[in-house]
Amino acid sequence: MQAQLIALDWGTTSLRAYRLGDQGRVLEHRSLDAGIMQLPTTPRSIAGQRCCDGFELAFDEACGDWLDAEPELPVIACGMVGSAQGWREAVYQETPASVGALSSALVTVRSLRGIDVHIVPGVLQRSELPNVMRGEETQVLGILSSLPASETRKPLLIGLPGSHSKWVRAQDGRIVHFDTFMTGEVYAALSSHTILGRTLQRGDAFDSAAFDRGVGVARLPQGAAGPLSTIFSTRTLGLTGVLSGAAQADYLSGLLIGHEIAALVQLLKQTETALPAVILIGSGPLLERYQRALDASGFPQITIAEQATERGLWQVAVQAGLISSSSTADSRPLHVEN
Amino acid sequence: MQAQLIALDWGTTSLRAYRLGDQGRVLEHRSLDAGIMQLPTTPRSIAGQRCCDGFELAFDEACGDWLDAEPELPVIACGMVGSAQGWREAVYQETPASVGALSSALVTVRSLRGIDVHIVPGVLQRSELPNVMRGEETQVLGILSSLPASETRKPLLIGLPGSHSKWVRAQDGRIVHFDTFMTGEVYAALSSHTILGRTLQRGDAFDSAAFDRGVGVARLPQGAAGPLSTIFSTRTLGLTGVLSGAAQADYLSGLLIGHEIAALVQLLKQTETALPAVILIGSGPLLERYQRALDASGFPQITIAEQATERGLWQVAVQAGLISSSSTADSRPLHVEN
Repeated sequence: MQAQLIALDWGTTSLRAYRLGDQGRVLEHRSLDAGIMQLPTTPRSIAGQRCCDGFELAFDEACGDWLDAEPELPVIACGMVGSAQGWREAVYQETPASVGALSSALVTVRSLRGIDVHIVPGVLQRSELPNVMRGEETQVLGILSSLPASETRKPLLIGLPGSHSKWVRAQDGRIVHFDTFMTGEVYAALSSHTILGRTLQRGDAFDSAAFDRGVGVARLPQGAAGPLSTIFSTRTLGLTGVLSGAAQADYLSGLLIGHEIAALVQLLKQTETALPAVILIGSGPLLERYQRALDASGFPQITIAEQATERGLWQVAVQAGLISSSSTADSRPLHVEN
Repeated sequence: MQAQLIALDWGTTSLRAYRLGDQGRVLEHRSLDAGIMQLPTTPRSIAGQRCCDGFELAFDEACGDWLDAEPELPVIACGMVGSAQGWREAVYQETPASVGALSSALVTVRSLRGIDVHIVPGVLQRSELPNVMRGEETQVLGILSSLPASETRKPLLIGLPGSHSKWVRAQDGRIVHFDTFMTGEVYAALSSHTILGRTLQRGDAFDSAAFDRGVGVARLPQGAAGPLSTIFSTRTLGLTGVLSGAAQADYLSGLLIGHEIAALVQLLKQTETALPAVILIGSGPLLERYQRALDASGFPQITIAEQATERGLWQVAVQAGLISSSSTADSRPLHVEN
């Protein structure tokens, strides 16, 4: 099937490339370890020129053959590729953010092939503690655009678990507020670079009882001590023979995620009277952990959403006029403005 | 002056040795980088025997010459030297803990010289989130013993800032409750092993404005997000041009200490109606940071206490009968029971 768009989800450590057909259907996709912090370095020839630029090399590895076959395909990208350390900086758009706002603020970089790569800007929330995201805004807008209008009118909470989890509040199809929790990165730093790592053993099997015990800590009276204090129980429960080394890893994981969700509930209570419906974006074991912890914390409705990035990039591209929005219309891509 | 006691504060990274005279007066002291996790490894001759045991080597370096001169001196030690990884394990005593309880539970290890080293046990607080300390109990009891009885009858909060801060509540001369905050170690892990380290620059000069700004975060409405979230502002305040790289280090330090103290206040509120008087044990820049943060958090009375370890080891030794409690009595140490 003829493609309509090449969509790139280009983050810090990975680069995912999608070849999308009519109505954003995924025709093909690839995942490369070519995030902006680990770009390829081996020079190669691109469009007849010897090239050693990491962004060009990664771009060519990701979709050079697709463009060889269909040189007119428009290309769109989101994520850290638009950061100050990226290929071309796409200045943050401020909250509230919508598909319309982002699609009218695309920044282009012309590749060696002469193809323009359209970069989606990240989102900035100004406040005493500012917040930023790059890539997640596209995922959230992709999910919002796939919901019926009746669903997007009410407040929604969209969670994106990761090494930096994002919790995004949306209403009327727009991102109105978001919070970042560095839970995953803190877990890695604690388990590898503090005393907790001396007794904690990482294993393959998920110890659900240890995880659930950890999740419950934030809701204990002693949980008021916060994670700077309660993490020490990972060690002391080992010293007192309650948790084996193998159980300590999932206990600490649950403890941190439990504190994250307890804090999220505190923040929600500042403006909401009831816990909102939650949509979790992602897949895999980490998502299951969050689902489990949200369940235990009383969230009434949790939905899992997939293909958020592809959908979001498709929507932004459509709204930016990079492609025809109708799959029954001319199937050749519109020419891209420069 | 003739000595009465050799007192060792033997932790994970350092070994401090004190030669104490009448009434616990410090005649001489030394500090060695010979904590139980970095013991010496170069073999040497001790008491006519070639020795390669790290504990013996460290002990000999710390006070071998003092014992050569006065072989009858009793020796007492506190800290991680009594842990399972120490020279001899001194099983934890449970809260509430007093000088009397600790002094009757000393564990001895006979060194190559034939000298018994009396090790003070640490303290364990059993609960759903157990807590332990080794060394700090001796410091706290040293301070309590130096206060008039009228002072120790009321609830006191004793803070021991460090890589693991301890906050100890005492009443009637006994340790009744304590909490551990891994703030210092978390700071080191975050600033060296997470994304925050990419923009944060450590410098020599203390940026008090950045530190105070950090301390205030926990008391903002957004502070309810807790440290897993608010730490990200170290980076975003850099991205938005508010904090220089050099300011980010003290901002993060203040932010974590502020969250620690805010959580401590939450815990205190569970049982107390007013913030108690605080005694801080220690010295140096870290203590000043805590003093500054406690001031900003409304603690009405903050006192700095020094020589806590020497006093505590002296008190325990006196109560254990290792030395005469009266400096005017026979100045030779009592013979030590084996």
